[in-house]
Amino acid sequence: MSRFLTDRLSKLKPYTPGEQPKQRKYIKLNTNESPFAPSKSAIKYAKAQAKNLMLYPDPDCTDLLNAVALDLGVQPENVILTNGSDEVLNFAFMAYCDNDTPACFADITYGFYKVFADINSVPKKVIPLKDDFSLSVDDYIGQKGTIFIANPNAPTGLLLPLTEIERLLIANKDNMVVIDEAYIDFGGESAVSLIDKYDNLLVTRTFSKSRSMAGARLGFGIANKAVIQDLVSIKYSTNPYNVNRMTASAGYGSIKDNAYFVDNIKKIIYNRDYTVKELKALGFEMTNSMANFIFVRHDKIDGETLYLMLKKAGILVRHFNDEKIKDYNRITIGSLKQMQTLVATIKNILENSL
Amino acid sequence: MSRFLTDRLSKLKPYTPGEQPKQRKYIKLNTNESPFAPSKSAIKYAKAQAKNLMLYPDPDCTDLLNAVALDLGVQPENVILTNGSDEVLNFAFMAYCDNDTPACFADITYGFYKVFADINSVPKKVIPLKDDFSLSVDDYIGQKGTIFIANPNAPTGLLLPLTEIERLLIANKDNMVVIDEAYIDFGGESAVSLIDKYDNLLVTRTFSKSRSMAGARLGFGIANKAVIQDLVSIKYSTNPYNVNRMTASAGYGSIKDNAYFVDNIKKIIYNRDYTVKELKALGFEMTNSMANFIFVRHDKIDGETLYLMLKKAGILVRHFNDEKIKDYNRITIGSLKQMQTLVATIKNILENSL
Repeated sequence: MSRFLTDRLSKLKPYTPGEQPKQRKYIKLNTNESPFAPSKSAIKYAKAQAKNLMLYPDPDCTDLLNAVALDLGVQPENVILTNGSDEVLNFAFMAYCDNDTPACFADITYGFYKVFADINSVPKKVIPLKDDFSLSVDDYIGQKGTIFIANPNAPTGLLLPLTEIERLLIANKDNMVVIDEAYIDFGGESAVSLIDKYDNLLVTRTFSKSRSMAGARLGFGIANKAVIQDLVSIKYSTNPYNVNRMTASAGYGSIKDNAYFVDNIKKIIYNRDYTVKELKALGFEMTNSMANFIFVRHDKIDGETLYLMLKKAGILVRHFNDEKIKDYNRITIGSLKQMQTLVATIKNILENSL
Repeated sequence: MSRFLTDRLSKLKPYTPGEQPKQRKYIKLNTNESPFAPSKSAIKYAKAQAKNLMLYPDPDCTDLLNAVALDLGVQPENVILTNGSDEVLNFAFMAYCDNDTPACFADITYGFYKVFADINSVPKKVIPLKDDFSLSVDDYIGQKGTIFIANPNAPTGLLLPLTEIERLLIANKDNMVVIDEAYIDFGGESAVSLIDKYDNLLVTRTFSKSRSMAGARLGFGIANKAVIQDLVSIKYSTNPYNVNRMTASAGYGSIKDNAYFVDNIKKIIYNRDYTVKELKALGFEMTNSMANFIFVRHDKIDGETLYLMLKKAGILVRHFNDEKIKDYNRITIGSLKQMQTLVATIKNILENSL
């Protein structure tokens, strides 16, 4: 820290991304990446822009914006494109939280929410999940703040039905509700269908997971026009060219090839079902995840030990040190072969260590 | 604006980027882009990452970081990579300005400084340039705030010598001084050589102009380790994966091919000299620009008229409505052929309208 840093930021605890080891080749099941390459169309469109890099991108990314809107069945004025969904989430903290409007979110959820609150110096209202990690909308009704809910939640994968989201939107109509749908494509029903009905709804999404584009950094927000205008004015006040040419073009290419994306989702769900079944047979308990990861614990081996033994065996999963979830590991759903290796490795660990 | 937007941001006046027209094919001399394609090496490296987009980028962009540090003759701990230099500039406003530490900058300079101050709710101390648009370091000495100086300045192109920057660093040793060197490669001497000597110096740079990579969004900051740590902690609190895979790789490829970059700079300087000479012969007055643009006025035609007539003729330049500079146009230095067309078009406009 330098002697010039403003007091406000001197106690920041930045977000810790999942390990990205450079030395050893692991089976990476720790950052919820897709095991599948991006669509050939996405690759082709991305490459086509490399020769045009001397020119600024279209700050509105008009072609991509229109394609995303069409794909979602909304108008372009209902969408903002950002440098990953982290950027649109941060914009939402900037726009809709302040001293009088705390950020309300679960104790166990995407770890970045508390960091976004801190970097923006807004108060946090942390609302505990139930003991089974389920989220009760009733705990959010009447909160005088902006509500952030990851749906499905991370790292639990638990999904709220759309009827519960809608109940919250109705009950809290004078507060913004942000539904972070990074993982919605793996089995949930999106709240995008509600944006015309509720002006207090912002849905955030990403190309990182289901569209195999984590390395491209492309996220988006969907809401009614006035909310999008708020966020666009923040974009134009921080980084108008936030989405680069290659990424915007890759996103466009991905949407042009939706069949590939739909097929990959089916595969992930199949591999998830396989892994759930196999790990349950090995005595694991887990949440009913609707995301591209599962959240598992075993009576006979503590979370950190399993994480370390898997790492030693060449498989990375994500372990969180938080007291409430330290028995668990979050395991990304990879290819069937990767999941078979995982299951065999865990079997081996259990047999040798119990 | 939605009814939920925090009061703090309700009066934001976002930055207005230069026009990026989609309908008509213009000779674009309005956004200081390079007329030259990115290096073949940059293109090759960018393309090579398209197939890997399912994986997150290395958040530290280690390979690129090491290459940039080596290229500048500093250590990797002295560098932060960002999504364009706008991002590192915004980080500097966040880190080093607050209610007690206003942002100090010239009245005529990069238009984004006032927007960054506003979005971060920090007071502005706007310091007028001299009548000839020169910046006197004496006007900044003793300011109790964080100083932002574009060097060369935009849109004037005027350069401060390094001795003047150093005089400011010594005189204001308890205040941060940010030197925005977006255009330094076109003829200035960089302050990067001073980072070990002065802990109150942050230099910002970009791959957008001299490296023909505006469309890739890659900027960086250079400073002593403690300052970089401040900025890295902000990066990890807003968007750890701010630089995507293709861009990081393109940047690496560009540095691997420095000969091309050096050659392009020579061409731009040659074309600038040509344009200056020709326009002076047509009666234009101008600042002594050391950037990849010139800043010109003519006694016989007002700035906006010339801008509009050039646009009609298929050439875009940048006109600012600010009272103090409304007589001027900022003209990006393009290829020799583009500049020849510009000169011929202006000659024609002057002959027909005077």
